[in-house]
Amino acid sequence: MPALTMGDPAGIGPELTALAWKALREQGEAFLWVGDPALLAPHVPVQIVQNAHEASAVFAEALPVLPITLPVPVLPGQPDGALAGAIIASIETATKLALSGAVSAVVTNPISKIVLKEAGFGFPGHTEFLASLCGVPGEEIMMLASPRLRVVPVTVHVSLREALNGLSGERIVQVGRALAVALKRDFGIEAPRIAVAGLNPHAGEGGVMGFEERDMIQPAIDALRDEGIDATGPYPPDTLFTDLARPLYDAALCMYHDQALIPLKTLDMATGVNVTLGLPIIRTSPDHGTAFSIAGKGVADPASLLAALRMARELGARRAMNKGKTS
Amino acid sequence: MPALTMGDPAGIGPELTALAWKALREQGEAFLWVGDPALLAPHVPVQIVQNAHEASAVFAEALPVLPITLPVPVLPGQPDGALAGAIIASIETATKLALSGAVSAVVTNPISKIVLKEAGFGFPGHTEFLASLCGVPGEEIMMLASPRLRVVPVTVHVSLREALNGLSGERIVQVGRALAVALKRDFGIEAPRIAVAGLNPHAGEGGVMGFEERDMIQPAIDALRDEGIDATGPYPPDTLFTDLARPLYDAALCMYHDQALIPLKTLDMATGVNVTLGLPIIRTSPDHGTAFSIAGKGVADPASLLAALRMARELGARRAMNKGKTS
Repeated sequence: MPALTMGDPAGIGPELTALAWKALREQGEAFLWVGDPALLAPHVPVQIVQNAHEASAVFAEALPVLPITLPVPVLPGQPDGALAGAIIASIETATKLALSGAVSAVVTNPISKIVLKEAGFGFPGHTEFLASLCGVPGEEIMMLASPRLRVVPVTVHVSLREALNGLSGERIVQVGRALAVALKRDFGIEAPRIAVAGLNPHAGEGGVMGFEERDMIQPAIDALRDEGIDATGPYPPDTLFTDLARPLYDAALCMYHDQALIPLKTLDMATGVNVTLGLPIIRTSPDHGTAFSIAGKGVADPASLLAALRMARELGARRAMNKGKTS
Repeated sequence: MPALTMGDPAGIGPELTALAWKALREQGEAFLWVGDPALLAPHVPVQIVQNAHEASAVFAEALPVLPITLPVPVLPGQPDGALAGAIIASIETATKLALSGAVSAVVTNPISKIVLKEAGFGFPGHTEFLASLCGVPGEEIMMLASPRLRVVPVTVHVSLREALNGLSGERIVQVGRALAVALKRDFGIEAPRIAVAGLNPHAGEGGVMGFEERDMIQPAIDALRDEGIDATGPYPPDTLFTDLARPLYDAALCMYHDQALIPLKTLDMATGVNVTLGLPIIRTSPDHGTAFSIAGKGVADPASLLAALRMARELGARRAMNKGKTS
């Protein structure tokens, strides 16, 4: 079973957690929440538990909580730097549980980078923090997965200019390699097909609009193919995500954040899941932020968190099974 | 009625033209083709005409053709630089007809930049050539329009690095202004709403991922608003094209080619229409290329050409009506 972190207590995490429990209790798809039970609405039945075993036993009747106590009261929509320590503790606890095998995966509720940064948190976001906690800093790779598309941007949360400057053949190969492993091991795809996007319009059109395809991306694809990975491309970015193209690959390797996220969110806004590859643990998260502006109003949509919980469960089960095979 | 150019005779233009005629003859949505009748399959009834009036009269019975004679025989799928002069002549003829008011719009079949370039054609593509023929070089602006989205990229057929370097507040304002005029005059939208995309992931997230939004895009939006144009943004690019966001604007002003074309083609691959704004004439074209690899095989899909012809007809009629109003 996955452990779900608290996220920012002033965001939509607490109410989404309660909604997710309501939606999943009947299917018996249990999860364990690492948070402060005081954040939940009074009508939500809660059971304090010590471990996943207890969580499983109570899930049909109550939301199982491994408690974290907040130092100050929380007002929805009003983030507070004084909560940073507890937010971080929830992530640490969930990650330790996953590393020890006590839970099968970590699902993270949204945090606010700005709140944590003000409190001295030294990581750009969840993903980098988790990689550090897992002892593999820099190995983390972001995948966004939805019912119709999986995308992996090679460069992520940097300006477009920095993305251009930071792109390298080595990084494309590194990400392509980790992607191939994850698609096989965690997604259960025997012979994964990776479509590699070009960087420039029309993938450079033979050098008329840029040379990165010729000088960097094509050699990286060749290197991946030399390792037996079914990587193809570089493809013109604008036609790579059409209804006709998507069935031809299992994941698209993209050169920058919006090249990956525009098609994914355009196709599947509410049901995208963020999956971190390259870690020793399974980690997913919903594909939205803290949404402070609607927190506590009862209008937040749990679709993405539900998709994240389900995907964590599925990937965790498959990885556990594969570990069983090889050990 | 629109005039339709020949495009590259070795591409899918001729067969699409015949298919479009078959689809439109019953609706009476006449067009005039400027091409070589020898390119059409023998079973397509053709009538040589001298003008739009004659074309209108015969359209229900035959495809009306203003003839251009090719100097050499054509094999589908085998482009030939010797055809460049005739390809260009077709474009020139159609444009002159539109400039004189003899036709209401120009619709262009696809050409191959490489074929024309080899023959000494000095323009990057159709659009720039048309602007030059119309006496407004540099004023041309590309819009892609589909049933679900209209997008206008501020930078177009250059590498992503050149797009970054070429982007300026002045250009954003210039394009935004022309877009507002076109949406009102040609698309019949009384108070057009223009959504301006950011350049960087999350629209820079307050400077964490780039400053172009603060330093260039926001001031351009302010300048447009000072002129009474309903421009808003800059919006995070990845959530600008979702089902929830699209109804909130009439066109998205985008910072680079793929930011505009990825969402458009992902949503509406087959029915996108390229509309050139900023010209004294109406010009549309299908949103695909010559497709040499499938030319002559009878598998080409006329959906985009049909959409281009219909949009040309609609925009041409509206502009003519508005001219009537103000003159």
